[in-house]
Amino acid sequence: MSHVFLTGFMGAGKSTVGRLVAERLGRPFVDLDAEIERREGASVQSLFRERGEAGFRDAEHAALAALAQEPALVVATGGGVVLREDNQALLRGHGTVVYLSVTPEEAIARVGSAGDRPLLAGGGLSAARAILDARLGLYAATADHVIDTVGKAPAEAAEAVLRALGAIRVGAQGDSGYDVRVGPGLLDACGEHVARLLPGASAMVVSDEHVWALYGERCRSALESAGVRVAQIVVPPGEASKSWESAGALLEGFAAAGLDRTSVVVALGGGVVGDLAGFCASAYMRGIAVVQVPTTLLAQVDSAIGGKTGVDLPAGKNLVGAFWPPRLVLADTDVVTSLPAAEWANGMVEVVKAALLEGQASVEGLSDRLPALGARDQAAVQATVRTAAAFKARIVSADLREADLRECLNLGHTLGHALEAVTGYTALPHGQAVAEGMRFAAMLAEELVGSSPELTREIAGLLDAVGASHGAFLECIAGHRDALEPKALLAAMKSDKKSRGGAVRFVLLESPGAWRVAPVDDATLLGSLERWRNGIGDV
Amino acid sequence: MSHVFLTGFMGAGKSTVGRLVAERLGRPFVDLDAEIERREGASVQSLFRERGEAGFRDAEHAALAALAQEPALVVATGGGVVLREDNQALLRGHGTVVYLSVTPEEAIARVGSAGDRPLLAGGGLSAARAILDARLGLYAATADHVIDTVGKAPAEAAEAVLRALGAIRVGAQGDSGYDVRVGPGLLDACGEHVARLLPGASAMVVSDEHVWALYGERCRSALESAGVRVAQIVVPPGEASKSWESAGALLEGFAAAGLDRTSVVVALGGGVVGDLAGFCASAYMRGIAVVQVPTTLLAQVDSAIGGKTGVDLPAGKNLVGAFWPPRLVLADTDVVTSLPAAEWANGMVEVVKAALLEGQASVEGLSDRLPALGARDQAAVQATVRTAAAFKARIVSADLREADLRECLNLGHTLGHALEAVTGYTALPHGQAVAEGMRFAAMLAEELVGSSPELTREIAGLLDAVGASHGAFLECIAGHRDALEPKALLAAMKSDKKSRGGAVRFVLLESPGAWRVAPVDDATLLGSLERWRNGIGDV
Repeated sequence: MSHVFLTGFMGAGKSTVGRLVAERLGRPFVDLDAEIERREGASVQSLFRERGEAGFRDAEHAALAALAQEPALVVATGGGVVLREDNQALLRGHGTVVYLSVTPEEAIARVGSAGDRPLLAGGGLSAARAILDARLGLYAATADHVIDTVGKAPAEAAEAVLRALGAIRVGAQGDSGYDVRVGPGLLDACGEHVARLLPGASAMVVSDEHVWALYGERCRSALESAGVRVAQIVVPPGEASKSWESAGALLEGFAAAGLDRTSVVVALGGGVVGDLAGFCASAYMRGIAVVQVPTTLLAQVDSAIGGKTGVDLPAGKNLVGAFWPPRLVLADTDVVTSLPAAEWANGMVEVVKAALLEGQASVEGLSDRLPALGARDQAAVQATVRTAAAFKARIVSADLREADLRECLNLGHTLGHALEAVTGYTALPHGQAVAEGMRFAAMLAEELVGSSPELTREIAGLLDAVGASHGAFLECIAGHRDALEPKALLAAMKSDKKSRGGAVRFVLLESPGAWRVAPVDDATLLGSLERWRNGIGDV
Repeated sequence: MSHVFLTGFMGAGKSTVGRLVAERLGRPFVDLDAEIERREGASVQSLFRERGEAGFRDAEHAALAALAQEPALVVATGGGVVLREDNQALLRGHGTVVYLSVTPEEAIARVGSAGDRPLLAGGGLSAARAILDARLGLYAATADHVIDTVGKAPAEAAEAVLRALGAIRVGAQGDSGYDVRVGPGLLDACGEHVARLLPGASAMVVSDEHVWALYGERCRSALESAGVRVAQIVVPPGEASKSWESAGALLEGFAAAGLDRTSVVVALGGGVVGDLAGFCASAYMRGIAVVQVPTTLLAQVDSAIGGKTGVDLPAGKNLVGAFWPPRLVLADTDVVTSLPAAEWANGMVEVVKAALLEGQASVEGLSDRLPALGARDQAAVQATVRTAAAFKARIVSADLREADLRECLNLGHTLGHALEAVTGYTALPHGQAVAEGMRFAAMLAEELVGSSPELTREIAGLLDAVGASHGAFLECIAGHRDALEPKALLAAMKSDKKSRGGAVRFVLLESPGAWRVAPVDDATLLGSLERWRNGIGDV
């Protein structure tokens, strides 16, 4: 993972802001001047005095070059680091450079015209102005992001830096929200993150047999390396593990392992593991912490974010559950690049949905990345997961206050869930069901809100490109044709727990970013389902 | 149930405030002037004109006398109702009289010198002042409570009325809190309450076989009479019904009965039913409404209030659960007067605890009521349940913000829970265990915080008086002497889920109303347990 380098003039708050940013990112913080002093065994002032500025700059460059080789850090650089081109190259080549800007007046007000700043040498404001003028162009040219710190408290400046870095947070800033981290290497870093967030907590990793075989030991050793005591419970893969009985067995396992109110459940797996482990965490001792480590694309962009947990009853899926927000979501993008095609498509359908709900720019961004995504290019995967996860995070954060906004996330799921239900949850992968639901909703939107046929074609094109074409759907349901009767589908929609009695509600897209929720009366809906059913022919 | 009569001058807000109070109390609202107009088929103004003031007052008295015979109402009276002594007697004899006071200036500002107020007859402020002066003594003499409405919005005045009436609310005023109603007849009124609070909701009554045999049909018919669709699930009585398996069966039953997100669970029973039904309500479809109708004294003053729900695992009691506040608590004081002595003592021990934590006045109030409580006198029972429930409500409301305050409620429970655990939860009723725990904590408090031996004796005296004497404890544990080893008790305290690792925490009373929580190190605690153990001798 690449570093975050904070640059800027003295008094810009590089160290103070850097510590806050490091804490939120769960990374170590390093002050470059302190690192130089440690390496050289002498103070910055004495280095300046004894070796002159050039000698100090050599020591600075050496320290920076050494730090660049370490794992991801937040580094507060010295104010003059940008003066040398070899330093500029190091910064640009090994991380993201954030320039914290400040006026000379504010800088002096913050630090005073202090005698321990060698270059100011008591010259006060005029000296500061001269130095800053000379460096201004270099700061700007080297930076990926510029954050104006004038009038900002350190916490505000840190938030601005985090936003610029693409950090994702659900809910309010502060204790009640949680971060969603997206990037490579997070599985191996999960121990540090857990230890930092919940010092002293013992961890119970919940996983399934497939995921445990692939990543269990890495997760376990990451936690142990960070000094976290670890136990694990590994359940069989698949929806059958989301039963009331298996939740009870898990809770017995928590008790047998001696988990207490300070412990943390680490959910390592896809949606089933996340739902099951999250629900058990919500219920154990009236609720203990859970950290979600989603290992499927679907879980990374959707189910791990938002706090919905649940298990199934024989009477229906997810009939039991709790809203139990995780304390942290770690979406390791290395893990998802090796997913099987069907799993990949499950997630990509939600990515398409998020882009359509977010707007035209998001759709275009996704379209641009599609070729690279086809090759599972890591940079494209990161950008894609980050964009979709950030969208979900924004929606569920807003829904903490604004009820019903979340309903937009149901785009494609109204028919999608019904298709899964009538085919018994086995033949039809979730993504293929939702994709067909999105195509059906687009057809409905043409009829009911006058959306354009071009939009319907655009949606179909995106779904084709991510492996969830209408043809793929037809293949999946071959042999289940009898189940796809309009009346059965209508009944399934009405028994969905989202149903509020009365008409079935559909999320209808008018254009990318513009949607509305419309109740559709039974007669209209049956008519549309008949046309859809006739359209898919004898499969 | 008795009426609430609002009296006061025109413009005091009797109708506006009365409607708000009625809504919160779940009772019908009647405006006396409107009732006169309905009965007489003529407006107040025309009655004044045609029959003179005396004729109007006769009609007013007749209407008031008729209303007095109806079930509990909130009545906004006319400004002159207190003029007649027979009206004063009706008011005092049939309910609680709350005088909403207002200055003539404010009254005129609120209503204007309106022509439809017959007695003002355009005389404005001076007329208002004269009339109010003449009535002031009568308002005050007739009232049980005086609420000054000057400068208060109607909602504020209504809150003040509710406080004066002893209404109990948990949590913030407004949507997020809930009312605790205490009084006779609430079981038969539960249908109206549920229908008013959750219009259109279908209800699932959860009860146990004992309670259902006594009160099930009354509860069911109260709900049905109010137009609420009802189903019920009746579980075997006793702690065994608080298992994970029985919770799963209950949830299956919810689904089979077609409960949806708008449904309400009505928990009719003691602590087991409340905990089980509350937990299942929290988990069904990620949480549906629950109304607690506690039928034991212990549940009415303690477990039904505060939102803790839970079921047991083989590994321990209440290891699984959720914080799931009820939408309403209905504590019918008729129901508890017929409890068996052991059940009564279980509740009364918590009443003693609440009084000791609340302060000297509360202890004295309880002491004064003890003889009447011995006879299960309804007025004494009401006052006792109301006081203890209000104390619990205050503590848990404050704990929404101020973590750890709730810990005071653990007074007597540290050793109490351990005594229950080591004796296998069968021999020792909860109340007897907590009572012994309170006596032990009093001894500890003498040693550790210098509380007086008089306080220890006062505590013992109160517990003796409610049927939870040391002698009663000794009788219960006869045959379980071997289990009461200090080391086993210490181990049980440490495995309690409230334990935070390290030293066991005790709530220590310094004097009534003054307590602190102290960690007690193992050596000290073992020493005290040894002395206690030796003190109880060969039982």
